[in-house]
Amino acid sequence: MNLRIPGPTPCPPQVLEATAKPMIDHRSPQFAELLNDVVRRLKWFYKTQGDVLILTASGTGGMEAAVVNTLSPGDKVLAVTIGAFGDRFAAIAQTYGAEVVRLEYEWGKAADPEDIRRSLQEDPAIKAVLVTHNETSTGVTNPLPEIARVVKEHEKLLLVDAVSSLGALPVETDAWGLDVVVTGSQKGWMVPPGLAFVSMSQEAWNAYTKAKMPRFYLDLGRHKDYLERGQTPWTPALSILYGLQVALQMMGEEGLEKIIARHAYIGRLTREGVKALGLNLLADEAYASNTVTAVKVPAGIDVRTLRRLLQEEHGVVVAGGQGKLQGQIFRIGHLGWVTEDDVRQVLDALAQVLPKVGFQVPIRP
Amino acid sequence: MNLRIPGPTPCPPQVLEATAKPMIDHRSPQFAELLNDVVRRLKWFYKTQGDVLILTASGTGGMEAAVVNTLSPGDKVLAVTIGAFGDRFAAIAQTYGAEVVRLEYEWGKAADPEDIRRSLQEDPAIKAVLVTHNETSTGVTNPLPEIARVVKEHEKLLLVDAVSSLGALPVETDAWGLDVVVTGSQKGWMVPPGLAFVSMSQEAWNAYTKAKMPRFYLDLGRHKDYLERGQTPWTPALSILYGLQVALQMMGEEGLEKIIARHAYIGRLTREGVKALGLNLLADEAYASNTVTAVKVPAGIDVRTLRRLLQEEHGVVVAGGQGKLQGQIFRIGHLGWVTEDDVRQVLDALAQVLPKVGFQVPIRP
Repeated sequence: MNLRIPGPTPCPPQVLEATAKPMIDHRSPQFAELLNDVVRRLKWFYKTQGDVLILTASGTGGMEAAVVNTLSPGDKVLAVTIGAFGDRFAAIAQTYGAEVVRLEYEWGKAADPEDIRRSLQEDPAIKAVLVTHNETSTGVTNPLPEIARVVKEHEKLLLVDAVSSLGALPVETDAWGLDVVVTGSQKGWMVPPGLAFVSMSQEAWNAYTKAKMPRFYLDLGRHKDYLERGQTPWTPALSILYGLQVALQMMGEEGLEKIIARHAYIGRLTREGVKALGLNLLADEAYASNTVTAVKVPAGIDVRTLRRLLQEEHGVVVAGGQGKLQGQIFRIGHLGWVTEDDVRQVLDALAQVLPKVGFQVPIRP
Repeated sequence: MNLRIPGPTPCPPQVLEATAKPMIDHRSPQFAELLNDVVRRLKWFYKTQGDVLILTASGTGGMEAAVVNTLSPGDKVLAVTIGAFGDRFAAIAQTYGAEVVRLEYEWGKAADPEDIRRSLQEDPAIKAVLVTHNETSTGVTNPLPEIARVVKEHEKLLLVDAVSSLGALPVETDAWGLDVVVTGSQKGWMVPPGLAFVSMSQEAWNAYTKAKMPRFYLDLGRHKDYLERGQTPWTPALSILYGLQVALQMMGEEGLEKIIARHAYIGRLTREGVKALGLNLLADEAYASNTVTAVKVPAGIDVRTLRRLLQEEHGVVVAGGQGKLQGQIFRIGHLGWVTEDDVRQVLDALAQVLPKVGFQVPIRP
C-alpha cells in the first residue's frame, strides 16, 4: 500500500521493527539513555539550544500544551489562521479563556506578515501570536521567518504549530526566535503516532512562571523536571520512542539539508505532475507546501469514488478534505519516508483513475 | 528479562508483533473496524453498556479526562486517598479549580466506606467522589463495591482510577454504579503504554453537559462524536491499538473469570513467598492487591543495591517506592502477562540476593 496521506505517514521497516521491542522500566538508567539520546537528536533538528519536551499525545495535545503552559485566562492573543489547524489552535486558546483576536485568510492562501504587523500595532495588548507553519488542511506553508521577525520586533511570544513541517521543511527555532514549536511523531519523523514534541525558549519559560491556565497532564514544567533525571512524569509511549530513536538515526545519516532538498524536489514534482493531469492546486503556488498537496476536485467528480478506486485498483491512499473543504479537495501527503517513485505511482494511478470517474486527462506528449 | 514492575508490564510476542504493523489511514473504514472491535471488547471487560472512549495518553491523562469532563471550578469533591495515585487524582481536581475535601489514610491501609459515608453526610455540598481502586504505590485494593454503594446511596458522581485493576481484578462498572472508570494500556492489558481508556455512565454524560472545566484534547464529548463514525478526534497511537486488539483477543480466549482467578492465585503466591523470605508486606493483608505487592525494605538494607543485583544477576526488575515511600519499599508487579513461574523466579532471586545485601533469609524446610 502506498499511504499518501499527510499523517500517519509510512514508517521504514527498521522503525516498525524497533517499535516491537519488549518493554523496559521507564524509571531505569536504560530508559534515561534512550530518552536523552532522542531529545539530543530532536534538538539538533529543531536547531535549538532550548528545551524539547516529549509528551505522550497527538499533535493536538502538543498544541494545547503550547497554549496552557504560556498563557493565562484573559490574555489577548492573535491567532493567525489559514485553515483547519489554524482554527484549531485558536479554538484551544479560546477554550482555556484567552481573548482571541483572529486574523483569518481564505483557505489556500498564506498569511501576510504585514497584516500581522498591523494587528500588533493596532492592539498593543496582544501578548502572543499563534501561527501554523504548514497548514495540512490546505497545503500552504506560511512565511514563518518573516512572520517571526515581525512578532519578535514587537516582543510578543510566538507559538508555532510545526506539526507537519518540522523535520521536513526548514525550521530554525533559535535563529528565528520561535518560542514554542510543536510537532508530532507521525509526520516528518517517519514514526507511528503517539508522541508530540514541544520546544520551549527562555522567554516561553518566563511566560510559564506567570501562566495561570490549568495544566497537569500537559504541564511542561513537570516534563522538564523529570527530563533532568532522564524520565518523563507519566509512563511514556515507549514503543514509539524506540521507533523514534531509529528514525532519528536514519534522518541524521541522510542529513537535514538533504532531507529538506528531497521534500522540496518531491513537492515540486507532485505539483507539476498534478497540473500536468489538468488538475488545479488549492494553494497559492508561491506558498505551496512541500509536505502536502491539496488538489481541487474537478466539477462533477465524486471524490469518494476517486479515492476508492485509487485504493482498490492501485493501492494508493490519499486524504480527503477537512472542514469546509470536505468533498472539494483531496490531499496527497509527501512527507517523511517518501521517494520520487512513491509520488510517480500516485500520479500514474490518478492518470488511470480520473477518466473512470469522468475526468479526461490531457494526453501526455 | 523478567520485568516485574507494575507497568509497563511485559507484552506477549504476538502483541509486540502486532504493534509493528504498517500505518493505515485513521479516517478509513479499515480503521473504523479496528476501533469498533477494540471498543466492543473493552466494554465487555468493563462490564458496561455505557461508553468507553480511547485516548492517546498515559493513565494520568485518563484521570485528568475523568475530572475535567464532569466537574466545574468550585465544585466540591471528596478525594479518597490511600497513596501516591490518590494524591494525584486530588491534585488534578485541585489544579482545575475544584474544592477538594481530602479523606486520607496511612499508606498501606485501605479506605473505610463508613468514613466516606460520614464525609458525605457531614457535607451535602460534595458533588463527586474520587477514588483509586488499586493503589499502585502501596499495593492496596480499596473495597470498591462497598465504597460505590455508599456513594450511590448519596447520589454522588463516582470517578474511579482503575488504572492498575481493570482487566485483572473484578470491576463491574454498571452493576456497581461507577460513573467514570479510567485505565491504561500498559497495565492489565499486556499492551505498551500510550492509550488510556475512560468509561462514561449516563450520569457522567449528564454531568458533562454542565461541566465547565476547560478541555479540548481530553474532551470526551468529541471522542464520543467521532467514535460514532468509527474514528478518534485526533490521530491515535495506532501501533498500540494494533497490539491492544491482539491482547484483547487473547484475554477473551482466557476468559475474564480465569484471568481474575490467575491474578488472585499469583497475588497470594507472591505475598506468601515474600513472607517466607522473612520480609514484611506494606499492605494491610485484608486489602492486599493481587496486581502489585509492596515489600518493606528491612532496616539497614540499601534497596538500590538490592534492585541492582536482582537485575544484574537474575534479570529480575522490580520497582522502587514512590513519593514518601522512596527507599522504604520495593514493589513487585504481577499483572497482565504473568505466570506462576515469573513470580517464583523473583522469589528465588530474592532468596539469593538478600543475603548479599546483609539480610539473612530463613532456611527453607
